[in-house]
Amino acid sequence: MISANFKEIVSQYEVVFFDSYGVLRDYDGLVPGVQQTFEYLHKNDIDFYVLTNDASRGPKELANKFQSLGLEAISRSKIISSGMLARDYLKYKVKDGTVAFLGTAESAHYIETAGLKTLPIGELSLKQIDHINALVMLDDEGYDWYKDINKAINLLRMRNMPVIVANTDLTYPVSRGKIALAVGAISDMVEEIVRKNFIRFGKPDAQMFNFAYEHVLKTRMVDKDKILMVGDTLKTDIIGGNKFGIDTLLVLTGNTPPDKARLFIDSSGIIPDYICESAAV
Amino acid sequence: MISANFKEIVSQYEVVFFDSYGVLRDYDGLVPGVQQTFEYLHKNDIDFYVLTNDASRGPKELANKFQSLGLEAISRSKIISSGMLARDYLKYKVKDGTVAFLGTAESAHYIETAGLKTLPIGELSLKQIDHINALVMLDDEGYDWYKDINKAINLLRMRNMPVIVANTDLTYPVSRGKIALAVGAISDMVEEIVRKNFIRFGKPDAQMFNFAYEHVLKTRMVDKDKILMVGDTLKTDIIGGNKFGIDTLLVLTGNTPPDKARLFIDSSGIIPDYICESAAV
Amino acid sequence: MISANFKEIVSQYEVVFFDSYGVLRDYDGLVPGVQQTFEYLHKNDIDFYVLTNDASRGPKELANKFQSLGLEAISRSKIISSGMLARDYLKYKVKDGTVAFLGTAESAHYIETAGLKTLPIGELSLKQIDHINALVMLDDEGYDWYKDINKAINLLRMRNMPVIVANTDLTYPVSRGKIALAVGAISDMVEEIVRKNFIRFGKPDAQMFNFAYEHVLKTRMVDKDKILMVGDTLKTDIIGGNKFGIDTLLVLTGNTPPDKARLFIDSSGIIPDYICESAAV
Amino acid sequence: MISANFKEIVSQYEVVFFDSYGVLRDYDGLVPGVQQTFEYLHKNDIDFYVLTNDASRGPKELANKFQSLGLEAISRSKIISSGMLARDYLKYKVKDGTVAFLGTAESAHYIETAGLKTLPIGELSLKQIDHINALVMLDDEGYDWYKDINKAINLLRMRNMPVIVANTDLTYPVSRGKIALAVGAISDMVEEIVRKNFIRFGKPDAQMFNFAYEHVLKTRMVDKDKILMVGDTLKTDIIGGNKFGIDTLLVLTGNTPPDKARLFIDSSGIIPDYICESAAV
Repeated sequence: MISANFKEIVSQYEVVFFDSYGVLRDYDGLVPGVQQTFEYLHKNDIDFYVLTNDASRGPKELANKFQSLGLEAISRSKIISSGMLARDYLKYKVKDGTVAFLGTAESAHYIETAGLKTLPIGELSLKQIDHINALVMLDDEGYDWYKDINKAINLLRMRNMPVIVANTDLTYPVSRGKIALAVGAISDMVEEIVRKNFIRFGKPDAQMFNFAYEHVLKTRMVDKDKILMVGDTLKTDIIGGNKFGIDTLLVLTGNTPPDKARLFIDSSGIIPDYICESAAV
Repeated sequence: MISANFKEIVSQYEVVFFDSYGVLRDYDGLVPGVQQTFEYLHKNDIDFYVLTNDASRGPKELANKFQSLGLEAISRSKIISSGMLARDYLKYKVKDGTVAFLGTAESAHYIETAGLKTLPIGELSLKQIDHINALVMLDDEGYDWYKDINKAINLLRMRNMPVIVANTDLTYPVSRGKIALAVGAISDMVEEIVRKNFIRFGKPDAQMFNFAYEHVLKTRMVDKDKILMVGDTLKTDIIGGNKFGIDTLLVLTGNTPPDKARLFIDSSGIIPDYICESAAV
Repeated sequence: MISANFKEIVSQYEVVFFDSYGVLRDYDGLVPGVQQTFEYLHKNDIDFYVLTNDASRGPKELANKFQSLGLEAISRSKIISSGMLARDYLKYKVKDGTVAFLGTAESAHYIETAGLKTLPIGELSLKQIDHINALVMLDDEGYDWYKDINKAINLLRMRNMPVIVANTDLTYPVSRGKIALAVGAISDMVEEIVRKNFIRFGKPDAQMFNFAYEHVLKTRMVDKDKILMVGDTLKTDIIGGNKFGIDTLLVLTGNTPPDKARLFIDSSGIIPDYICESAAV
Repeated sequence: MISANFKEIVSQYEVVFFDSYGVLRDYDGLVPGVQQTFEYLHKNDIDFYVLTNDASRGPKELANKFQSLGLEAISRSKIISSGMLARDYLKYKVKDGTVAFLGTAESAHYIETAGLKTLPIGELSLKQIDHINALVMLDDEGYDWYKDINKAINLLRMRNMPVIVANTDLTYPVSRGKIALAVGAISDMVEEIVRKNFIRFGKPDAQMFNFAYEHVLKTRMVDKDKILMVGDTLKTDIIGGNKFGIDTLLVLTGNTPPDKARLFIDSSGIIPDYICESAAV
């Protein structure tokens, strides 16, 4: 069920959206051959963006990671992260006061560029919460789960405020065959407890794709049918791209292994327009 | 907890998005005073759109309904419906073949303007399904629930295809105090059975708001902070508007009665920027 | 992964609980060889019961079905149905008034043996509901889905009453490869709409197994470790039997086909004590 | 909506099942007047049991807690805990090997009385898991959430085994107005991640009530209609008792405050047979 080669397909588009983990890199480093892919894109004037459900740091730090791996083409302006959407939400809708957060200091630093004060839940006193105007869930690291998740729950019971989830993923891979809980899973649990409606950013939600499309339009006028989404995960990359109305290509280097692709597609009902072994040209 | 008057608030925006049912009209006809609201908008050069989770007919017929009630200002071009998003999806992503549907002939007629053939599930033979390239759920009326919902389930078990839900609402009001199941509830039940991932269009999803915003940008350049969403339902209009990054105003003429507004806001955690008794100026 | 033969396993127990559909019979009639199984059980003084999520008729009619297929051993007293639990609930907890129902006249007839008046939803007037003390969902047939499901929803919004679901299955097979919605799926949809907590009877719930165990104890003292549950469905028969604390045996003549057994067990985490090709000795 | 007094109601029954927290005691100690209640029960030969979703220690330690508060009547044999059901499950269905657990050493100690070896997840090496035959979730304390929940998830991905949840509650109260996550919430999150079917013990599940009923029958023959369930929580105590077929009494000293009782009953559809201010005679 493998389609014709990646290069041939990509050559028909003007812009390519790439998922990051499982498509361009994994725990071993870069996916073999993707450096040549970016050279090919450059030569053929095909633009690209990396769409990632990552709010653990800002776009600059996310780009640095690729550059340290040798993928120079991926600069800060090429990164579209769910954290950027969360930051924009806080900037435009919360405006003032302090934003409590679950995450690392690094993840909060990026939120502060929106002009808001941030406070780690661990430093919050539940006796002084009148200045807290939002809670944002940024990362699974940087806090004591037992103490701080419980404190977040009590905060939300005591004061009504918007809760922003900056990464909707339930898990992320940490090594071959091992995964870890992402902040999306923690936020689902907390939402179930407090029975409030959180605001979530990240694929497969259309807002992420639209945010990327707005970035595209700043530099060139492109119709949606000239954009290709390349991802390894049916339930985020592919269904999200499909719904947004762009063509989708599934690679088999990450969450969807070659021997499971047919099973996953049939059982999920999520059908990519193309399937390739990898994003290597 | 009622904010200052509607007129004063609206005057600060360049574009207003209105929900339809419970805001502009209900089972008794127009909400009192909304005709004057549209006169006020016109005089002050404030543009507007009606955002509705309705796929039971095309935008022209939806506009006709308002005009027959005396709201001349709402023409076809002012309607943004979830059915329009579903139609676009089918046009760009399905392209050819036949689209099976659950709904009225009228609802399918609009889909056919995308150039696709449609077939009511009731006329489908499960022995000839190779040409069916999508299933779309348009309306709760126009078919035999028992026969046709069961047939749709078996169709989806026999052939893998995208399923598009053109109205995500679970219910709609039919008279004072009475409701009826909307096609969104039927699609949730069918999805649970077949365990596939359907594609849904309608508020609170960001794609609906973005689609409306794209329409705005065709006629005037407006920043998001100059757009106001006016709705009666926290879980569709208000959280959707908030997440999209525009200001939101809750009216108390529909799903959120005046004596329950505080309870609903506190228990849901969905906080509008303003609250007004109605959309009357 | 097939265990040693069925006869050898069964001979170690004093009582066997059988699921009905997919184990003893299917749309083609009896599963080949099961008549001999019941002869074997009789000769070896092994008792048995049939546990079925069926509320469409009383135990007498359910037994008649087996007898008409030639399985004389299955008399009325050997049937344990979810409908029997629902009937008991109504008898002991509702006591008086009228019970509105969704189902066939035949399904309601059995409820009436508890001494309660019943009224099909189709004959109910929403203007006279003060005597309705419960709603029971019995079967997917016998009513107009569109009219009567909507009427049931409005009834539940107008008057607070217990809602009893007498069959928790989402679907049932109607012929090779074809299924139909069962009343369990309809009740899930209605519960989601009215946001009340329904009372459900049927496997995998422990109450069904305990009800059967109480029947066993009326005729012989048997410890749980001398009872074997034989079923074709991991998510009802096997997990229910496991949780109740009895041994479980999966047959491959129904919902779990031979080539999928390993996949289904690994992906569900539901592990039967034995696996056999069928319940034939 | 308060019914006649507690003493009058209780006098009509032969056995009373009490929930613990919010009915007999809270963070301040005993609920005022309950000591007299147990004297009254004793004088009138009314038997009783305490049904609690608590697996953090054995029945002896749970009884000690009551005795230290001055409620001498509650001895070890009067305690029915979800932990006892979990222990029985492990004893009869797992039989050998080692049981990995999330919880305190004290909670595991009770499991070991079933003759099984236990191993805290924290001490488990994911390289040596062949002897692990079950995972049991006992308590929210006693481990490092971040490390050990992640380790449990990877264990379940590497080896198929039954997972037992010994407390289904999502939260528990820690002081006036403050709550903490219970292990039931953690298990829901983990189940969502690994997509396996866990086995849960605790109210409102019928097995808990039946387990208590079996204890009753060991000392006296009592029909179900002579048993009363007294609880403060509609979604566990009351719906569970109703479904099991016994009469139910709601007290307003815990999760259901007096001014919310009508709202909670109407919105949940869970209707107790009686309502009393407290369990004091």
